[in-house]
Amino acid sequence: MSGFVSFIGSGPGDPELLTLKAVDRMQKADAVLFDDLSSGPILSHARDDTDLVGVGKRAGRPSPKQDHVSRLLVDYAKTGARVVRLKSGDGGLFGRLEEELVALRAAGIDYEIIPGIPSAVAAAAAAGIPLTRRLTARRVQFVTGHDVSGKLPEDLNLPALADPDATTVVFMGKRTFPLLVKALHDHGLPLETPALMAESVSTPDQSLHRATIGALSEKLEAEIGTAPALILYGPLAEFDDV
Amino acid sequence: MSGFVSFIGSGPGDPELLTLKAVDRMQKADAVLFDDLSSGPILSHARDDTDLVGVGKRAGRPSPKQDHVSRLLVDYAKTGARVVRLKSGDGGLFGRLEEELVALRAAGIDYEIIPGIPSAVAAAAAAGIPLTRRLTARRVQFVTGHDVSGKLPEDLNLPALADPDATTVVFMGKRTFPLLVKALHDHGLPLETPALMAESVSTPDQSLHRATIGALSEKLEAEIGTAPALILYGPLAEFDDV
Repeated sequence: MSGFVSFIGSGPGDPELLTLKAVDRMQKADAVLFDDLSSGPILSHARDDTDLVGVGKRAGRPSPKQDHVSRLLVDYAKTGARVVRLKSGDGGLFGRLEEELVALRAAGIDYEIIPGIPSAVAAAAAAGIPLTRRLTARRVQFVTGHDVSGKLPEDLNLPALADPDATTVVFMGKRTFPLLVKALHDHGLPLETPALMAESVSTPDQSLHRATIGALSEKLEAEIGTAPALILYGPLAEFDDV
Repeated sequence: MSGFVSFIGSGPGDPELLTLKAVDRMQKADAVLFDDLSSGPILSHARDDTDLVGVGKRAGRPSPKQDHVSRLLVDYAKTGARVVRLKSGDGGLFGRLEEELVALRAAGIDYEIIPGIPSAVAAAAAAGIPLTRRLTARRVQFVTGHDVSGKLPEDLNLPALADPDATTVVFMGKRTFPLLVKALHDHGLPLETPALMAESVSTPDQSLHRATIGALSEKLEAEIGTAPALILYGPLAEFDDV
């Protein structure tokens, strides 16, 4: 008898940004495997007798290897358990979802994928900035700021990322942002391009910082801190809330 | 005395994909202004005495002008009402959110923005395809397939959209897809590039159709139908569920 796995995007952190479907699956789960970022109050939806298993992969800290997480997932499901695999934001966006899907498929275990609020979308909402603008930002792009070794990926499509008419969201890119800005500037993007750094989005520690890409690059060269962050840049709406 | 407006992303259609925060605001609302796509079961969270106002803008049908919607929103709020403005998917993604924010700010009315599950993210989850892939798709981009006149926008960044190493999601692009594919092909994207058309995502009418961009273009030239659709293309994971 084999179990069933629900991959759940738990959203950016605010437990009120869970979907009704996510809450339902949490309540029915025999085991919940979670990353650090999706923990805390969100786990309170689980039953008292549910196994809560942290498999944290918080940026910058040592963490279990991906294949260990996949194996754990398969092992739990093989006991016949209803397993929830919580992933912060939406699991399909920079969530290493594919590796875990492949492992489950190889083991013949059924699963479902429940989408979550992407942190990029929550950051824009918190800042009051629509990601698309009718005439000036009709393209939105999400990109990761680091590769497996933590460096700026070498194969970035810099012309696409230097497009002044797109809103770009950089995930996990605080450390490499100064290098990225240098490359974007080399590809013609002005240093005065509006930017927004959103740290710990939708949590009590949320911090929003408006700047230009040039000024933000300088700030991050001086100090990056440890809070998880997203960086938005492009023709951002110039509301003065932030 | 002025009211308060909650902009709520109602997700792709499945009422179970509402967030807990959205449900809370629906229950407290004196008036709910909704588009066609976000109607139905989602409205059942409102109280019996809540004004439900359809301001539908469903693609292809005549609909109220945007400035009429903004005026209605301001008028409701000025009565002191708690107003919910439902937008399908996430309001900040191709949701014409900015125009309504500008109107409220001009009228001095307070508001909040509650993010929703973007239809693009829900489509990928339904198809079992992560939008990002660790080595082959580290960039994701969302683009609209039509401008205000319903045509393929003239200022598309075609080199960015023809990047074989990005996952692209085209919103509202069924009618213009053959033209887009021609342009992408001219910019070097092979007609064999995997594609997925997702219609009426997360509703009982959901339909997922896997193809290549070339084959999908031919299919849409023959018939486009009326269901709202998203089109994904790029190095999509080749799971065989769809």
